[in-house]
Amino acid sequence: MIIDVVTLFPEMFDGPLGYSIVKRAIEKDIVEVNRVNFRQFGKGKHQRVDDTPYGGGAGMLLKPEPLFDAVDSINEREPETKKRIILMDPAGKPFNQAMAEEFSGEEHLVFLCGHYEGYDERIRSMVTDEVSLGDYVLTGGELAAMVMIDATVRLLPEVLGNADSAQTDSHSSGLLEHPHYTRPVEYRGMKVPDVLMNGNHGLIAEWRHKESLKRTFERRPDMLASYDLSDQDKKLIAEWKTEEME
Amino acid sequence: MIIDVVTLFPEMFDGPLGYSIVKRAIEKDIVEVNRVNFRQFGKGKHQRVDDTPYGGGAGMLLKPEPLFDAVDSINEREPETKKRIILMDPAGKPFNQAMAEEFSGEEHLVFLCGHYEGYDERIRSMVTDEVSLGDYVLTGGELAAMVMIDATVRLLPEVLGNADSAQTDSHSSGLLEHPHYTRPVEYRGMKVPDVLMNGNHGLIAEWRHKESLKRTFERRPDMLASYDLSDQDKKLIAEWKTEEME
Repeated sequence: MIIDVVTLFPEMFDGPLGYSIVKRAIEKDIVEVNRVNFRQFGKGKHQRVDDTPYGGGAGMLLKPEPLFDAVDSINEREPETKKRIILMDPAGKPFNQAMAEEFSGEEHLVFLCGHYEGYDERIRSMVTDEVSLGDYVLTGGELAAMVMIDATVRLLPEVLGNADSAQTDSHSSGLLEHPHYTRPVEYRGMKVPDVLMNGNHGLIAEWRHKESLKRTFERRPDMLASYDLSDQDKKLIAEWKTEEME
Repeated sequence: MIIDVVTLFPEMFDGPLGYSIVKRAIEKDIVEVNRVNFRQFGKGKHQRVDDTPYGGGAGMLLKPEPLFDAVDSINEREPETKKRIILMDPAGKPFNQAMAEEFSGEEHLVFLCGHYEGYDERIRSMVTDEVSLGDYVLTGGELAAMVMIDATVRLLPEVLGNADSAQTDSHSSGLLEHPHYTRPVEYRGMKVPDVLMNGNHGLIAEWRHKESLKRTFERRPDMLASYDLSDQDKKLIAEWKTEEME
């Protein structure tokens, strides 16, 4: 997979690209990450990339030309790849795990990051996706792109050390994760549940599924709507609902 | 405000803390950001911070002691501050703008970042908040903490250059932003709307509000439920609904 990040702050990515899973994926040649500073396509002696808004108002806007030119330069470098051109935008579709999975199946992702008040509207005409990280305001698109790259790259084949890991995470199974415990058995007065130490794998699996379901029921009941509940799950949920009403 | 980030990868934060708004806030002494590497509280010669899960299963878990000890060290350094201790957790409450606003009113935020399969459950006993960045899986809590720090710090008084900026963003007004345009008037066949160039501020404000409302109606109708619609807004929405059905 090829990833291009179009940004005014390429150095911001040193940390996130230099550690952990993304670093490992780059070293294994599973992914190539390029940073394109669109300042180089800025206008005039000061390589200007922003300008005041028509109609007045506070703040500056990204001009269309530098971003169009940056994407043109990527198209020239990689004329053959099928590209998803993804605009980081608070008005975009909220990013989620299904989108990360979709992105992980693509050949070439191009992330466009703004870092001012907003974009000239015409920039939207060249993008395939407008994506928002969530319902909050960020200073720029860089952090959003870092998050999307991390969530996507970890899904690529052979990136995660343990083949099981990607499957058992919260939001991948459709339920939140069950509680985990490791040594010591007792810490600051808190003990590991007995069931996890009795070696009965059937009971452990049952306990974990129940705790996973219960945590989802308590914290994120909205997630249950798209989860395929067993008859036993439905019975448990009915019991918890009755308990809540008492 | 004091922010402590408890992490195994403090260098990951160099970029995000070294640029843009957060950097400016640090330089202006509006915020102090400390990074606490909890590896220093790891056990034995190898300063071990993780261990295998009780009951079996793939992956490693963060042990309780190093994280408890890291938070103890912060309490010793800053015994007087009122702290929010925030666990980055996919099973947590989804982060949103209201939470960023709440955090921006606090004295001391402590972000706990994991970077393995999960945490020992007992770690939750010392936190005040369990927060998720969104419904997607990340390699670690570092990127989530960076995003929350950015969203929070930009709301602190005197951080943003332009006092208006924080108010007019998407998700702050309750509606998505209207389209913006800057020079040139025509680019690749696309023109700036006439209304923005006629200098009539009443008409411009009206156009912007209508476009903002329309974009929210089209892309994020869920946001309208909590927005205080005027009679004129309701009329417009009724018209758009009729158009959609035709």
